[in-house]
Amino acid sequence: MKNVAIIGGTGYGAVELIRLLQLHEFMHIKKIISHSQYGEGIANTYPHLTEFIKEPMEELDIDRLKEEVDIIFFATPAGVAKDIIPDFQGSSVQCIDLSGDLRLTSAEQYKEWYGKDPAPQETLDKAVYGLPEVYKEQVKQAQIISNPGCFPTSALLGLIPAIEHQVIANQSIVIDGKTGVSGAGRKQSAMTHFSETNENVKPYKIGAHQHIPEIEKYLSDIAKDSITTTFTTHLIPMTRGLICTMYAPLEKNITSSEVIDLYESYYETHPFIRIRDEGTFPTTREVYGSNYCDIGLYVDQRTNQLVVESAIDNLVKGAAGQAIQNANLMNGWDEKHGLNTIPIYP
Amino acid sequence: MKNVAIIGGTGYGAVELIRLLQLHEFMHIKKIISHSQYGEGIANTYPHLTEFIKEPMEELDIDRLKEEVDIIFFATPAGVAKDIIPDFQGSSVQCIDLSGDLRLTSAEQYKEWYGKDPAPQETLDKAVYGLPEVYKEQVKQAQIISNPGCFPTSALLGLIPAIEHQVIANQSIVIDGKTGVSGAGRKQSAMTHFSETNENVKPYKIGAHQHIPEIEKYLSDIAKDSITTTFTTHLIPMTRGLICTMYAPLEKNITSSEVIDLYESYYETHPFIRIRDEGTFPTTREVYGSNYCDIGLYVDQRTNQLVVESAIDNLVKGAAGQAIQNANLMNGWDEKHGLNTIPIYP
Amino acid sequence: MKNVAIIGGTGYGAVELIRLLQLHEFMHIKKIISHSQYGEGIANTYPHLTEFIKEPMEELDIDRLKEEVDIIFFATPAGVAKDIIPDFQGSSVQCIDLSGDLRLTSAEQYKEWYGKDPAPQETLDKAVYGLPEVYKEQVKQAQIISNPGCFPTSALLGLIPAIEHQVIANQSIVIDGKTGVSGAGRKQSAMTHFSETNENVKPYKIGAHQHIPEIEKYLSDIAKDSITTTFTTHLIPMTRGLICTMYAPLEKNITSSEVIDLYESYYETHPFIRIRDEGTFPTTREVYGSNYCDIGLYVDQRTNQLVVESAIDNLVKGAAGQAIQNANLMNGWDEKHGLNTIPIYP
Amino acid sequence: MKNVAIIGGTGYGAVELIRLLQLHEFMHIKKIISHSQYGEGIANTYPHLTEFIKEPMEELDIDRLKEEVDIIFFATPAGVAKDIIPDFQGSSVQCIDLSGDLRLTSAEQYKEWYGKDPAPQETLDKAVYGLPEVYKEQVKQAQIISNPGCFPTSALLGLIPAIEHQVIANQSIVIDGKTGVSGAGRKQSAMTHFSETNENVKPYKIGAHQHIPEIEKYLSDIAKDSITTTFTTHLIPMTRGLICTMYAPLEKNITSSEVIDLYESYYETHPFIRIRDEGTFPTTREVYGSNYCDIGLYVDQRTNQLVVESAIDNLVKGAAGQAIQNANLMNGWDEKHGLNTIPIYP
Repeated sequence: MKNVAIIGGTGYGAVELIRLLQLHEFMHIKKIISHSQYGEGIANTYPHLTEFIKEPMEELDIDRLKEEVDIIFFATPAGVAKDIIPDFQGSSVQCIDLSGDLRLTSAEQYKEWYGKDPAPQETLDKAVYGLPEVYKEQVKQAQIISNPGCFPTSALLGLIPAIEHQVIANQSIVIDGKTGVSGAGRKQSAMTHFSETNENVKPYKIGAHQHIPEIEKYLSDIAKDSITTTFTTHLIPMTRGLICTMYAPLEKNITSSEVIDLYESYYETHPFIRIRDEGTFPTTREVYGSNYCDIGLYVDQRTNQLVVESAIDNLVKGAAGQAIQNANLMNGWDEKHGLNTIPIYP
Repeated sequence: MKNVAIIGGTGYGAVELIRLLQLHEFMHIKKIISHSQYGEGIANTYPHLTEFIKEPMEELDIDRLKEEVDIIFFATPAGVAKDIIPDFQGSSVQCIDLSGDLRLTSAEQYKEWYGKDPAPQETLDKAVYGLPEVYKEQVKQAQIISNPGCFPTSALLGLIPAIEHQVIANQSIVIDGKTGVSGAGRKQSAMTHFSETNENVKPYKIGAHQHIPEIEKYLSDIAKDSITTTFTTHLIPMTRGLICTMYAPLEKNITSSEVIDLYESYYETHPFIRIRDEGTFPTTREVYGSNYCDIGLYVDQRTNQLVVESAIDNLVKGAAGQAIQNANLMNGWDEKHGLNTIPIYP
Repeated sequence: MKNVAIIGGTGYGAVELIRLLQLHEFMHIKKIISHSQYGEGIANTYPHLTEFIKEPMEELDIDRLKEEVDIIFFATPAGVAKDIIPDFQGSSVQCIDLSGDLRLTSAEQYKEWYGKDPAPQETLDKAVYGLPEVYKEQVKQAQIISNPGCFPTSALLGLIPAIEHQVIANQSIVIDGKTGVSGAGRKQSAMTHFSETNENVKPYKIGAHQHIPEIEKYLSDIAKDSITTTFTTHLIPMTRGLICTMYAPLEKNITSSEVIDLYESYYETHPFIRIRDEGTFPTTREVYGSNYCDIGLYVDQRTNQLVVESAIDNLVKGAAGQAIQNANLMNGWDEKHGLNTIPIYP
Repeated sequence: MKNVAIIGGTGYGAVELIRLLQLHEFMHIKKIISHSQYGEGIANTYPHLTEFIKEPMEELDIDRLKEEVDIIFFATPAGVAKDIIPDFQGSSVQCIDLSGDLRLTSAEQYKEWYGKDPAPQETLDKAVYGLPEVYKEQVKQAQIISNPGCFPTSALLGLIPAIEHQVIANQSIVIDGKTGVSGAGRKQSAMTHFSETNENVKPYKIGAHQHIPEIEKYLSDIAKDSITTTFTTHLIPMTRGLICTMYAPLEKNITSSEVIDLYESYYETHPFIRIRDEGTFPTTREVYGSNYCDIGLYVDQRTNQLVVESAIDNLVKGAAGQAIQNANLMNGWDEKHGLNTIPIYP
């Protein structure tokens, strides 16, 4: 049994970690750290946690964490983990950062897209990008995990097999992202205001989303080529769920059925990827509350384009679930441990 | 390990049973029976079940069921279970009926409110009303369970402590029900049409809901008095969730805090009931996907009324979760087994 | 043509006034006053108003308003209008206050429920409660209108005929209110956060809503008796729409059909009240975007209770539409002018 | 004053026509024709129309229509108007078909995409495609209008200026469509079932949508070149609203600001097109209930792509509103007559 701390206790990432860890037999939540509400019970903010978490949240105390916990999940806003994780380097504590702080290994890029000072380069260099379907071996060896963003998880899982097998061109890739509102977290803004968001589709951060360099970096790594993508994001009137619709020019003469076979074979040993049968496409509801990424594929013969639909629950495979999947791998447990649940439908 | 069959495989009740049974270590889904789609895989209809259920659905075969399964869940529309369950009387198979067929022990009442011929009287007499917070000992001994309706579950749990302790009068009780659309099942109608239901509150079946006699029967049993209630139902633009707001004239001079204490003590040994602190009230989201019934209480001193808010997930505590809770008790397992999960929030 | 000013230019009340006044031939929006954003165009905040309002919002200047406008709508939060309206007393400017500042004629009650200092007594005394279906003659003569709250509009219109005709008792009246989120305005809070509100029913302000004394005051005035009501409010996952379900003990032996006749006759000359046929009930969608109040009635013979469902659009009949209806009456125009539109469905 | 008939009285297209025609001073609804419900009042099905339409719906009678009405709106499913409109050719009755029957002038294409026999070629040849921003002069002269589909309206208005000015290539155009559920009409199906659609994004008809040939035909006409597009459609959990996100390779070195200028100049005399300022994009809510098409533009310099967001209300500019706009032009009235209303927000 490993002891776990969650830093950033009052956000949705933490709440989802708590929900999922309740089903995990080898991890025990020892501490929940909150900068703004330490001393309080988390059930004051989230009454649905009554009966589950009774200890008050605590202030950050790095020395005590080193003594008392084995794994730390950072469910913090951008700009927090980068200043704390370096203190754990050299210790045996495993750090899994759900924020974007360690995803761009270029310090300049981080400054440009996040508008903050980056983590120390040696921390950036040690962090492993926790997309287990692609970097499983590195994850197993990692002490620091940079957990992927929600859009990059969906986009990379949907594109990488086609990139790696040179089914599609490296340029002119279009990614049309659609996300539920919980991706914006619990802070209040026009983006999260019910009356502004309900019965509405709202394009946002067009050409300016911080997930653009993340997607391009890992696609480029796979392709061993410099890939740029046209990426847009749309806010959808739902709480959870994220789907990227992707379009890319075909490099090969290939049918829908052949692409499906190729993806199935690529993900054969990866339990959280489900490839849909020809002519059918995933919906976000079909992965709701689960760690699945469901992928549908279509070759448009008329236009010579590959169309990919890649659906996840942004709070699970796009955040807390993937973090636990990474923790499982880092500790030699079954990758699916605690995550082998059926999506909640309807 | 007990083998389980689910009859009525393509409705939401069955799908929710499958989701919850996946977390249960002592029950194994052996068969899914579907009258309309036997021979097909359930994942054709519900792609989110891919990887979980691979065997095709089967036709009903009572003799084989007697041989091969220990427990049958009836997730069938009204009018089906009543004709099948009698065939299992005398066998060792445990039958749990999620429909309304066995809830009214008066054959005449069933005919009046359901418009169908009732079950045989000896089946009605053998069936135990599976509200474990009230009838736990009977449930433990039962072979046939009549699983309560969604509104009655919420209403009875919210009213019974006050009735039993004569805090409120037996007359002039008002129950204002509010439910998500999944309660109407998967069949298509104006009630379940998105464009008719979204951005809308729709009163329905005013004075004519088949849950009225069910609520009144069990309240009356508790009170040892004939209780009638004014009960209305409102369709809310959400998928899951049900809350009854109840109003009853006080019979005693009592404060909110005293009523809360009384409820807490009444439900002390019942793990799925959570009583809210004074001044706070449950929301349906706070029980989403879970077997909890969360209850908030308020004494309106100005009008001498008790106000109760009682929230459940209509598909869990209002259907499949409660059915599993009953199965746990019937088989001597921990009441919470497979149900000890945190609500999914947000 | 009368010139109009709207004070409180960036809230939903103002935006709805602008939408409705666009259809009005005798009122012209001369000025929009905003304390927080004067100098800016309103289309910066509300791009849907591009092409309609081009002049920048202005700072409050009472002298210029007296010179340049004939009618002022106060779409301001509680506590603003009460300090401004007295400056217009004695002038010819008509003031219509959409906030709660002038609704309680008792200064003590205002202090208690709103937590602020009240308006001067002489302003309170001059203000007419702008519920035209009940106070039409007074409205016609008024210079200052206190526009009713959204819940009181629905509740009073649903109860007054039965109170006035002594169909129901003056005590033990229950009002179960259900409202869309736009009633909470545009400010950001947990109440208006999409992820907290979507797929959720949330009871709020139980026993503490500032509409309680307003409802009771006007019911009591009609009854010439002191009436108290048990009033609860529930936040529904929709933007617009409000419905009160009301329950009251019958004082008379009466059928549903007779109550319906009585209401139809009571509201015969009131074009915005539509009484539903027996056995049918209004939904909020059926009044969406319109100034209607649709009412359904049911006599529960089993429990001797009258059940009333009264649906409005909270931003129209519950705010801006009713304000324009009042302005029409004050100026001798047809009550329906600018408001004779069909609800938007679906 | 012209007399109007609506055929297809019980669908959402008819209901929206009724709503909008209520604001029109020169058209009077003389008849509502319903094949399935003639003899009944439309308010039986749509209670919100009580007080507005009192005459019962009628059976189709072509001779009487020729005598009694001047304009007919066909709000019928595919396959109906094509068999009726030929009977009005040669008469003075103006026919406006909201279905897809006359949109594809190639009889073969209609057969292929709609699976039905096409209209007579001479009817196809006479019908004018009613997209007034492009074909205004032809519309003014037309007797038969083929009213554009909802997706084509959004896509064509968003792409045509760039095509016509050769800003973008004629190939590799991607159109990612997102629509509310009302586009699927009132008939009941899994697509329109609340529990299947709420909290969900559902890709549908990928590569098979009957709007594909319509979009390509009119783009090709403008380009005088054969254009194919990759077009996908996604069902969004909202009732109304449609937005197409479009991506096309740039043919010119151009900035966002220059593209915006070009669109503004292209649509200068077209009152229903609003081009957003640089860096801002329309949301569907901002056109809700109105005849506007709001367009946002962005040049992605990194990938050399033009991104267009084009938002409409699918029932107004995508159906009934555009039909009225066409009727205005055909009859020499102001194009905006009856349509000059502010979107309903929020």
